Amino acid sequence: MIPSIPINLSGQRFRVYYKILGNEAEALEKAPDICLEQTVEFPADLVPRGDIRDHIVGHLEAMREIDSTHCEAVISYAVETSGFELTQLFNVIFGNSSIKPGIRVEKLDLPEALLKHFRGPRFGRDGLRKILKAPTRPLLCTALKPMGLPPTALADLAYQFALGGIDIIKDDHGLANQTFAPFKERVERCAESVARANRETGYRCIYMPNVTAPVDRITEYAAFARSHGAGGLMIAPGIVGFDSMRSLADDDRINLPILTHPALQGSFVTHPDSGISHFVIFGQLARLTGADGSIFPNFGGRFSFSREECKSIADGTVMPMAHLKPILPSPGGGMSLSRVPEMLELYGREVIFLIGGGLHKHGENLVENCRYFRKMVEGM
Amino acid sequence: MIPSIPINLSGQRFRVYYKILGNEAEALEKAPDICLEQTVEFPADLVPRGDIRDHIVGHLEAMREIDSTHCEAVISYAVETSGFELTQLFNVIFGNSSIKPGIRVEKLDLPEALLKHFRGPRFGRDGLRKILKAPTRPLLCTALKPMGLPPTALADLAYQFALGGIDIIKDDHGLANQTFAPFKERVERCAESVARANRETGYRCIYMPNVTAPVDRITEYAAFARSHGAGGLMIAPGIVGFDSMRSLADDDRINLPILTHPALQGSFVTHPDSGISHFVIFGQLARLTGADGSIFPNFGGRFSFSREECKSIADGTVMPMAHLKPILPSPGGGMSLSRVPEMLELYGREVIFLIGGGLHKHGENLVENCRYFRKMVEGM
Repeated sequence: MIPSIPINLSGQRFRVYYKILGNEAEALEKAPDICLEQTVEFPADLVPRGDIRDHIVGHLEAMREIDSTHCEAVISYAVETSGFELTQLFNVIFGNSSIKPGIRVEKLDLPEALLKHFRGPRFGRDGLRKILKAPTRPLLCTALKPMGLPPTALADLAYQFALGGIDIIKDDHGLANQTFAPFKERVERCAESVARANRETGYRCIYMPNVTAPVDRITEYAAFARSHGAGGLMIAPGIVGFDSMRSLADDDRINLPILTHPALQGSFVTHPDSGISHFVIFGQLARLTGADGSIFPNFGGRFSFSREECKSIADGTVMPMAHLKPILPSPGGGMSLSRVPEMLELYGREVIFLIGGGLHKHGENLVENCRYFRKMVEGM
Repeated sequence: MIPSIPINLSGQRFRVYYKILGNEAEALEKAPDICLEQTVEFPADLVPRGDIRDHIVGHLEAMREIDSTHCEAVISYAVETSGFELTQLFNVIFGNSSIKPGIRVEKLDLPEALLKHFRGPRFGRDGLRKILKAPTRPLLCTALKPMGLPPTALADLAYQFALGGIDIIKDDHGLANQTFAPFKERVERCAESVARANRETGYRCIYMPNVTAPVDRITEYAAFARSHGAGGLMIAPGIVGFDSMRSLADDDRINLPILTHPALQGSFVTHPDSGISHFVIFGQLARLTGADGSIFPNFGGRFSFSREECKSIADGTVMPMAHLKPILPSPGGGMSLSRVPEMLELYGREVIFLIGGGLHKHGENLVENCRYFRKMVEGM
């Protein structure tokens, strides 16, 4: 038998809301397994008595029936189990239970005792708006693409977008460091184009290159981007890991706003009975890990998120989370200009409208299309 | 209209096998969308003619019906789209399509022209066997737990496991850098315990601490572990990102075998019509990103993988992938000693048996339980 040794715990706990597939009787069987699986991962009868059994193992705090085949279990964990690190926090929230079908993380309730260890978004809504000198209106974003264009052609597109009044011009997430558009040359040329357009328009457009890159180059790329005039950065935490985004956001030498891209995060949300909710992954977690804006596929585009799921993401970007600044939802993915009024109705003015291909489709003249987009939004 | 500018491409392409939910007519509609979504992410009619349309956009190479509701589409991409980086390769394979339900990555066919940019496993099956002086028999692995034990108690467990003849003693994946078991103190004590036991037994047991940590500390932790006697490292790429594992495996200063842990990767595999197959994620990708052994939940334990899924993982650890060394599958997760013969039947001798809690359950004396385990395996 393993000995019981007292450990020093604060008594502070964080809560995870799990949706469990099953009726109440089934859920009441599954929930204690989650309490063990996410912490001691040990047979219940062998868990040492004392602090480990009483405080390290998760506590089932509440259980309610959602419908005849789903329940919600609220499980709390000692804040110390997270080591106050994002990586281990993710592990306690869902590490092994992610491998069991029929369990979904729906909501996180993280106390100040835990959140104080995370800086969160450096700029947030207000900070980003201040940089763009756009205190109240929806923000306009587009993407440089298609993959395969050389830096000169991408820079020319960036110039046209900036001239037309787009606020944020980001790399398409498929632009990495390919031979046909190397990262550094692309960043130099695009940032320069945007600066030139800004001098002509008086606008404050920023260029956000994609720093979804090998982990040992992210900081180098970000520093290069900063010193060559980029106004922000885009990164896909599904590809580089959430903690790489956190580390980037925490870096005082970089000090740029960050947009998070959803690539490779789809598997968390595609099945309603497994994974992590839209609210958590694109809302709460994007914020906890330092994004200032969260890109996700809007309802009714090329992807399949529902209106309600999109609304829940917007809710997650602003719900109270201690000192963590609210961030901006950025719905995109097959959007056209004609969808803007409908999006405004759902998201209100606290939004970054992301329109990529749709901006090319509206009419022959790209600059005019952008002007039309901007006027439309300013008139709202 | 965006101009068409010739780019320099080798003509080499890699292939992704996607399972698509739908009959052949439906799949023939979806496949061209994948070809666009994973590359140019641009409206089909606006894709510039020339190299971008002809070579950057994915090619549908083959389509076959699997059954009345599923098809397999083989799509190829120019190797240059990956930038020869793991991060962008993941992005091209499944970045945005992960967000569309009904698309699953089933198999990768990566040519030498791409694989030559990846080192892959540093040790592989043979290298790990050489370290452990176990040229042919199945290897024995267990985990230090439960979370909440102080380093002294974990080190005492490590000593008993090593004395009993376990080959690999790894941290439980829930051991991070918590106040009750700080990483460095734990590593020092556990490595020292294992070395002491080895001096008594003449065995070559190794200790593999968990370096699933904030990305800015992984290298520091790994170097500390190495210099304090750890014989390998465990890391969970679902939490830190696959490229963090790749970077660790590529680091000549660390030079230790790596076990990959499946925490937070479950959402990729839990739904059969979405995500990434067991074969790819725990087999091919674990190998591509430098793991020497791949931990996954065995069939019939606490998790829900089928016998066939487990077999496919084992297949992925050894299938031809140019110079990439074969690695060892390590099934675990609620295994007991009584399951060993059945596991041997499925996996053969090229396996790391991972038994955690089950080793404590077999009998009162932990050292004797380990000896029983070892004898059982040596007698096979």
